[in-house]
Amino acid sequence: MTPRRAEAFADGVFAIAATLLILNVDAQVGDRATDLGHGLLHIWPSYLAYAVSFVSIGIMWINHHTVMDQIDRVDRRFLLATVGLLMCIAFVPFPTRLIAEHAQDGGARAAALAYGITLTVTALFFNLTWFYASRQHRLLRVDADAQVVSGITRTYLPGPWIYLTATLVALVSSTASIGLYAAITVFFVLESSLFGRSSAGLET
Amino acid sequence: MTPRRAEAFADGVFAIAATLLILNVDAQVGDRATDLGHGLLHIWPSYLAYAVSFVSIGIMWINHHTVMDQIDRVDRRFLLATVGLLMCIAFVPFPTRLIAEHAQDGGARAAALAYGITLTVTALFFNLTWFYASRQHRLLRVDADAQVVSGITRTYLPGPWIYLTATLVALVSSTASIGLYAAITVFFVLESSLFGRSSAGLET
Amino acid sequence: MTPRRAEAFADGVFAIAATLLILNVDAQVGDRATDLGHGLLHIWPSYLAYAVSFVSIGIMWINHHTVMDQIDRVDRRFLLATVGLLMCIAFVPFPTRLIAEHAQDGGARAAALAYGITLTVTALFFNLTWFYASRQHRLLRVDADAQVVSGITRTYLPGPWIYLTATLVALVSSTASIGLYAAITVFFVLESSLFGRSSAGLET
Amino acid sequence: MTPRRAEAFADGVFAIAATLLILNVDAQVGDRATDLGHGLLHIWPSYLAYAVSFVSIGIMWINHHTVMDQIDRVDRRFLLATVGLLMCIAFVPFPTRLIAEHAQDGGARAAALAYGITLTVTALFFNLTWFYASRQHRLLRVDADAQVVSGITRTYLPGPWIYLTATLVALVSSTASIGLYAAITVFFVLESSLFGRSSAGLET
Repeated sequence: MTPRRAEAFADGVFAIAATLLILNVDAQVGDRATDLGHGLLHIWPSYLAYAVSFVSIGIMWINHHTVMDQIDRVDRRFLLATVGLLMCIAFVPFPTRLIAEHAQDGGARAAALAYGITLTVTALFFNLTWFYASRQHRLLRVDADAQVVSGITRTYLPGPWIYLTATLVALVSSTASIGLYAAITVFFVLESSLFGRSSAGLET
Repeated sequence: MTPRRAEAFADGVFAIAATLLILNVDAQVGDRATDLGHGLLHIWPSYLAYAVSFVSIGIMWINHHTVMDQIDRVDRRFLLATVGLLMCIAFVPFPTRLIAEHAQDGGARAAALAYGITLTVTALFFNLTWFYASRQHRLLRVDADAQVVSGITRTYLPGPWIYLTATLVALVSSTASIGLYAAITVFFVLESSLFGRSSAGLET
Repeated sequence: MTPRRAEAFADGVFAIAATLLILNVDAQVGDRATDLGHGLLHIWPSYLAYAVSFVSIGIMWINHHTVMDQIDRVDRRFLLATVGLLMCIAFVPFPTRLIAEHAQDGGARAAALAYGITLTVTALFFNLTWFYASRQHRLLRVDADAQVVSGITRTYLPGPWIYLTATLVALVSSTASIGLYAAITVFFVLESSLFGRSSAGLET
Repeated sequence: MTPRRAEAFADGVFAIAATLLILNVDAQVGDRATDLGHGLLHIWPSYLAYAVSFVSIGIMWINHHTVMDQIDRVDRRFLLATVGLLMCIAFVPFPTRLIAEHAQDGGARAAALAYGITLTVTALFFNLTWFYASRQHRLLRVDADAQVVSGITRTYLPGPWIYLTATLVALVSSTASIGLYAAITVFFVLESSLFGRSSAGLET
């Protein structure tokens, strides 16, 4: 298999996981006909959860391609690690729905923990695939850009710690934890759009 | 990442968002066994909503490719804008279901507003991606056809205003608003199929 | 847009429509824990409907590629016709579920009619796309094989009539109609696998 | 159609079938707000079923590409066999949900049987596609690696028997059977990651 085929499968999972998120919003409305307008306003956490998760998956998709662009060939172990990574990404709609439904009730803490654990494990799998591929240039292109390679490493390493921290915050305050998840996403968006140009190493 | 990879992900979201629309029809039937035939006729707004939304997404897919065909390379900001655009498109099945369910009851106004706001924001993101790419020929191919480029600009600019108008009409009459959404779609279909040939600038 | 990109979107819709069929089986089981085994046997029409529809969509996918292989370029009208065709194919899981649920109760006739009308309209759109593309060799490759072209025409023309006949049979007997749908699918499978070799014109 | 187009459709079905698995986890939580944390821990069989099935589908995806890499061309019979194979793979989320829901109640045996029968039939279709393609080198590349070809044959032949055995075990003990399904998946993962290197014949 070439890296291109592995990307095609990954693109499919990213696209489906992101698109399925709308089912979470859908499930929140129910069948109420009276005062639908009020109901649509009341479920605003669903829209926020949808946007944060969709953009998070979108950024992971961008990052995944940044990695794949540096890769020349794939082997079975790398493909298995990729399957594990996609397994995490396809899981994201589930804790997203939990947050959307329970951000304002007694299940907020459990929902925040579930979301955080999912994202932490996802970040771990991102590191696993990357370090397996890049260690001793195992699967990298011979002309892989040294600056890009070290840039990816610098970006990926703190990922699990950042999400683990936001997860642990949920033990103290679920609201603060959910706020942190949104803030992390906003940070990634801003980093890409404002500073994206200067960090030449991560140009896609 | 090349524009081709970005198209593959976008194609996936377009295809899934369009195909998921059938779940809205599905949800309308319920489990009734007695007089299924009458039930199937009674939910005719579902079929209309399905057709209008599927064709709308299909036309957006065609337009997205018209844009991508003029683009030579992508950067992170453009990819982020594309993620935002796809986030809107994947949202379309939700207000579509609202219209299908509530076109004939008290929730018609809220449903029409939700649909209109979604389409208006989608049109805004179409403009955002296009103007970011085309401004000072930032991401365009060196051989981009000047006529095509100005043709896309002419077509995209009025989009948000058209949908905003139809949205505001919902405040007066939800029926008129929903009729306008259908009319806009029919117009785009006719424009493409009847006049498509003459507007050389938008030939795909 | 090239024919290859149009195929990528179509492949997505075919793949999703086919894969979503399993949700129909899923919905039949419910949450019963007592006597699950008996329940799983009782819903055998679901499995049959799943298989017939999956294979039908699979054969349409194969046929769609046979057409696309003869095509050199696409224009907006052809893309619109393709969107219409895909709209029909994405609709198939809905009447399939109706048949799976109601084959043995009072809704059988309505379900059989819904399935038949869907497949008849789908066959009409297959003809529309094909004749638009092939008339006066409008979009065909210059080296399109005359035998393949006339072979596709011969295969497509009777399609709507065959499905219309099976649909009308439902007015007399829904069981006979559903049996005909299954028989048509089996015929297409046999034709492809047994005689596929001799009909050189349709070799893929 | 080229083998590349057949792969694109297959990739779509693999990606969707895998991603839809999360809906099974989703369905387990329900709408409980009180003690959500306890509820999330209580449905641990869902997570296990999700992981085992996602990785199983992932490994099938890797294996499918190993086969396709040896193939030079496709004909209608091969495509039909592939449609049958994909029909099985798209079916996997259904018995997976049955196991996730019923592993701890009276439906465990029926669920284990349903899962086992599905995987057994899937393994049969894997053999069907492979032997149709490889018999007398019918569809293989002229430069197909003899070691890879015999390696695939050796790996595929025992597949149906292994799953049939685990299925029959369910008649005695559903717990043992479900444990066997998990063990088979773990074995495939270990085989690929630990010994993958030495079995040069199956290098991807």
